[in-house]
Amino acid sequence: MGERIDSLLRNGYRIIQNTRLFCFGMDAVLLSSFAKAGKDDEVADLCTGNGVIPILMAAKTEAKSFTGIEIQEESAELGRRSVELNHLTDRIRIVTGDIKEAPELFGNASFTVVTVNPPYMNENHGLINPSSAKAIARHELLCTLEDVIRVSSALLKESGRLYMVHRPHRLADVMETMRRYKLEPKRLRMVHPYVDKEPNMVLLEAGKGGGPFLRVEAPLIVFKEEGCYTDEVAALYGNEE
Amino acid sequence: MGERIDSLLRNGYRIIQNTRLFCFGMDAVLLSSFAKAGKDDEVADLCTGNGVIPILMAAKTEAKSFTGIEIQEESAELGRRSVELNHLTDRIRIVTGDIKEAPELFGNASFTVVTVNPPYMNENHGLINPSSAKAIARHELLCTLEDVIRVSSALLKESGRLYMVHRPHRLADVMETMRRYKLEPKRLRMVHPYVDKEPNMVLLEAGKGGGPFLRVEAPLIVFKEEGCYTDEVAALYGNEE
Repeated sequence: MGERIDSLLRNGYRIIQNTRLFCFGMDAVLLSSFAKAGKDDEVADLCTGNGVIPILMAAKTEAKSFTGIEIQEESAELGRRSVELNHLTDRIRIVTGDIKEAPELFGNASFTVVTVNPPYMNENHGLINPSSAKAIARHELLCTLEDVIRVSSALLKESGRLYMVHRPHRLADVMETMRRYKLEPKRLRMVHPYVDKEPNMVLLEAGKGGGPFLRVEAPLIVFKEEGCYTDEVAALYGNEE
Repeated sequence: MGERIDSLLRNGYRIIQNTRLFCFGMDAVLLSSFAKAGKDDEVADLCTGNGVIPILMAAKTEAKSFTGIEIQEESAELGRRSVELNHLTDRIRIVTGDIKEAPELFGNASFTVVTVNPPYMNENHGLINPSSAKAIARHELLCTLEDVIRVSSALLKESGRLYMVHRPHRLADVMETMRRYKLEPKRLRMVHPYVDKEPNMVLLEAGKGGGPFLRVEAPLIVFKEEGCYTDEVAALYGNEE
């Protein structure tokens, strides 16, 4: 019911999605390219959903291992099947669990990198069905921004890096909360649909225990005209059939 | 010695500068356009230097009054002469003084708008001459970012607005400190020399006692090619002879 297999256009990797659940978007693609990981890195991906970020980063980086944590069993189970489908069981594990319990489960300072594409929305319109799988992925129902940042800080070793994608209108919340948990914003990139439009995403790297100096990068522009990606974004998406 | 009169390309206004002191740059031009002020607004400009921001805003807005505060008497004196030269003594006063004493001098909650182009640099290289007029304008020697923000918050009435230009690498400092003093970042614009380059300035509006929601605007691009402003920046500069 609603299940499909999509190409990830990288290394021949594919991903199992279900249209009833949350399907990955451009945020995941951009975050997986913005995040840096080398061969010694052990990466935790919070709110991993169907595991798209670890799978994309397995294609794009040499990171040693990825641990995806997802509270919704149905999404986590899709993730585990995608990992098997791509023969990535030696590098990626998808764990069903509440990120708030992750430091207890995995230990403090147990990762060198954390990635997270968290629920963006903190408005409560009263129109949300709080048990809907999509609402849980999109709204701060089961975890807040502060939970995500507190847990990231706990999981990271000293000098470890957090990579996050969020909405620009939350930037002050994000930065202030990061600093409160000893995560110093180090690199920022705004994502604009067009060069003359407001950004609709912000990519952020923070360093555990780092000193203050934020590098803001050139804007990332998605479209050159309607339906036509800029060369940079086309390259980030990959070009396999 | 080193004194000259430059056109401001607006309302026929001119400004007296001295090349031995700090001469205004693009930051002042962009800040004076980014800042909004209406006919009931009473504006304080901290670290006003030769008064370029009040004079430009007198041309661009209907604000009732401007009070520029400058610690260096030599710059403030240039500013007072420019105000007279432009017949603006009924709208602008330039006061010599330390911004840290401004709340005592003018009273708390005595302005509806504060503008500030503060000293950007907090690195102490040991190469700075701390008594040089230019060093005082550029480095946090006589006032820090926290002083600027604490004073702005004290001077502003509830719902008043602070407009600041700063370096992007200080953005986390700026936002965190604003929030600590009940100034909520509400609007942000990055200024990039070219569309594919890192920003070298950030314009920020904060609201006294506002709720959290930051609007990030389209990037402001300065040059379309070397030596050639984009149409937007050319318009901000004005086009008088």
